[in-house]
Amino acid sequence: MNDGGNMETRSQFVVDSLQCKIHLSEAQLPTHWYNLAVELPFSIPPPMHPYHERPVSADDFRWLWPAEYLDAELRAGQYANELRIEIPESVHQAYRRYRPTPLVRARGLEAYLDTRAEIYYKREDLNPGGSHKFNTAVAQAHYAAQEGVDTLVTDTGAGQWGTALALACSQFGMNAEIFMVRKSFDEKPYRRGLMKLLGATVLTSPSEATEIGRQVRREDPGSNGSLGIGMSEAIELVRTSPHRKLALGCMSYHAALHQTIIGLEVRAQLELIDRWPDVMIGCVGGGSNFVGFTAPFLFAAPSGRTMEFIAAEPEQIPCLTVGEYRYDWADYNRQTPRLAMYTLGSDFLPPPIHAGGLRYHAKNPVLSALVKHRIVGSRSYPQGDVFTAGQLFLRTEGILPAPESAHAVLAAIEVARDAGQKKNHRPVIVFCLSGHGYLDLQGYMDVLGHS
Amino acid sequence: MNDGGNMETRSQFVVDSLQCKIHLSEAQLPTHWYNLAVELPFSIPPPMHPYHERPVSADDFRWLWPAEYLDAELRAGQYANELRIEIPESVHQAYRRYRPTPLVRARGLEAYLDTRAEIYYKREDLNPGGSHKFNTAVAQAHYAAQEGVDTLVTDTGAGQWGTALALACSQFGMNAEIFMVRKSFDEKPYRRGLMKLLGATVLTSPSEATEIGRQVRREDPGSNGSLGIGMSEAIELVRTSPHRKLALGCMSYHAALHQTIIGLEVRAQLELIDRWPDVMIGCVGGGSNFVGFTAPFLFAAPSGRTMEFIAAEPEQIPCLTVGEYRYDWADYNRQTPRLAMYTLGSDFLPPPIHAGGLRYHAKNPVLSALVKHRIVGSRSYPQGDVFTAGQLFLRTEGILPAPESAHAVLAAIEVARDAGQKKNHRPVIVFCLSGHGYLDLQGYMDVLGHS
Repeated sequence: MNDGGNMETRSQFVVDSLQCKIHLSEAQLPTHWYNLAVELPFSIPPPMHPYHERPVSADDFRWLWPAEYLDAELRAGQYANELRIEIPESVHQAYRRYRPTPLVRARGLEAYLDTRAEIYYKREDLNPGGSHKFNTAVAQAHYAAQEGVDTLVTDTGAGQWGTALALACSQFGMNAEIFMVRKSFDEKPYRRGLMKLLGATVLTSPSEATEIGRQVRREDPGSNGSLGIGMSEAIELVRTSPHRKLALGCMSYHAALHQTIIGLEVRAQLELIDRWPDVMIGCVGGGSNFVGFTAPFLFAAPSGRTMEFIAAEPEQIPCLTVGEYRYDWADYNRQTPRLAMYTLGSDFLPPPIHAGGLRYHAKNPVLSALVKHRIVGSRSYPQGDVFTAGQLFLRTEGILPAPESAHAVLAAIEVARDAGQKKNHRPVIVFCLSGHGYLDLQGYMDVLGHS
Repeated sequence: MNDGGNMETRSQFVVDSLQCKIHLSEAQLPTHWYNLAVELPFSIPPPMHPYHERPVSADDFRWLWPAEYLDAELRAGQYANELRIEIPESVHQAYRRYRPTPLVRARGLEAYLDTRAEIYYKREDLNPGGSHKFNTAVAQAHYAAQEGVDTLVTDTGAGQWGTALALACSQFGMNAEIFMVRKSFDEKPYRRGLMKLLGATVLTSPSEATEIGRQVRREDPGSNGSLGIGMSEAIELVRTSPHRKLALGCMSYHAALHQTIIGLEVRAQLELIDRWPDVMIGCVGGGSNFVGFTAPFLFAAPSGRTMEFIAAEPEQIPCLTVGEYRYDWADYNRQTPRLAMYTLGSDFLPPPIHAGGLRYHAKNPVLSALVKHRIVGSRSYPQGDVFTAGQLFLRTEGILPAPESAHAVLAAIEVARDAGQKKNHRPVIVFCLSGHGYLDLQGYMDVLGHS
């Protein structure tokens, strides 16, 4: 207020006195994804064959993934050698139906916290299916449809990824077969119902439909399942049928690439109001929303400015905060390539927390490398605090965050509260509201005791 | 295509080749509500005392309603004598947090129907609480808070109104006490949970908390309840306590006035793309979203153009299509003023359809008068067709409509299909998507058989 130049005062005025939401027009929707790999100041160790000591080749996995997907994964680090990858027209057309999503100033939350910080959130909860997942689902469905795939098979936790893929498949005239982790399958009948309304086949995982599913059930009849087990079941199903291919929501470079549409929009939106983030926050399951959200900022800080990037994870699945960085499989049954990443072990069975989208043993290799090289930091949070933060966000901003996204809300609150301690510091905090929680109310009710 | 002038071609190009969503900036958010009563070419019969043969005076109901509310109701027809009523600053501030809402071209639905019509929908599902209801909840909470009310009491069906009021009360530091119709209370535990997360007290109606509730339960222990019974319970509670006042979601002129923000935005949005609606469609429970959506269009058709306004209601509660136009009470227990309106009788107990927000025996007096004078038409639809239309909208547009709003979707589909019959006719159909259905999935699953 008393230390800003003329420019600062002007933009301050625009933000403070009027604007709550920063919109981009459809014409401002980015036409390219942001190929972060080109910018990385380190290389990412190559994906290794599941059980031979050699890097994976495309031939090893043509039966599992569409060609475009394999290309992206195997060439990560030099994918097209271009910083910008053009978004195919049919995907861009689908994006235009709902994007750009607004960036919103959290005025209600700021007032409640009485903070000096400015808090902004990117509304990926407004996407079809209710989360950021549709950004990659529609791209994966496009590439699969292009090569004549009949059915995409996948695993889902809370069901946001499953919903997004079911919707994308229905729009490209393909089938979706979805292994839904049992804990979520039982707890979220409405998510299941929504996927079925979209025409998808939904199986509880571990299921009786695969050998690995039956094996897990034999060993532990009460198994809650996990994303790793669901992925193994999906892979087994694809292996037995040439017209099926696998789709993955967050563990691939491909998925993270598609999510960079988020970060590109945020960058344009912040430019409109003359802001640069001091802190960027996202929750991490596999890590795709976090990477996509932060990618265009990670190596772009104006000279002399420091930025902090915080990946928020559950205390009970402390992959980044406690796990090891090493080669590991992405699935429980060790069928995927081995990836260099933070992991709790592919046989780690996550405790039955309600944030089903975070019940995964490892993190995306790009995110893992960013954490390993200390470009991205991580924090972990206990479930009760996370749900309380989600409830506070509902009361102050009128939006119920997904339990996953509530991790990011809590981290933002923590950072904003810390900001109050430092004089003359008004940090700009931006977080990704990756999804809404209207189909996760059972978790809120169980944890917070409102039934 | 071959009959448009230059102008037509230009705007056609803009719409067809690029734009899916029509946004207004926050600076374009209307500053006034639209006082339709001033424009009506007929007068609305005055509200009558519940059991004396004289018009109601403000003194009769000061115990029940905040002063601003009473003013609006009793002066309907000449409320302020002004066509534009200024939106109080604190309400406008709340609106700016989420409004203007986008108007969206239903490209997916149009493609599926292979229709010549252009279909647009106004996304009131994006409001806090998930429906148009917050537009009036926040205004009612503002006026009540201004005169020191401690607690607002109301009834809710599907829970959209209850959620909106709970949120508005929490933002103005008031309590909300909500009688939720039993059918919905039992069927929508998540709606209930959401209201509780917002700090509201939620009672099942008929309840044990009021004399009229106990009476209904004695007479019919299995009663599903109704909005009319819930309203009677809310009124009884207010009568016994001076710090409580009543809030109503749709039956008042006040509520409809606040919803005109919808129609004003739609008008500005259609102007941006050089369109004028041929057909406007909304679902009707009490009628507030319909009136607010259509108000600025009802008497504004450019000369030589005819417009059609369609109020869509459930076949099982055929108030406008089968009911009588006469004086009746708004509540089951005959405590409210008697209003001149279409009604099935204040003792009509609506069958337990899933569109809980439409389970009401009567219609807003303004809407009723518009139908009586044949300015607005009505159509009624069976539940199965309504849910099927909702599912189709989910698959083609990626949004699950509330069962209430799905009535409007079905009417729009019907009109678009009829348009296919007429050559050289490309009607512009605009409907109000009044709310989302993510908390109504049980109904979809029950009716469409996906469990």
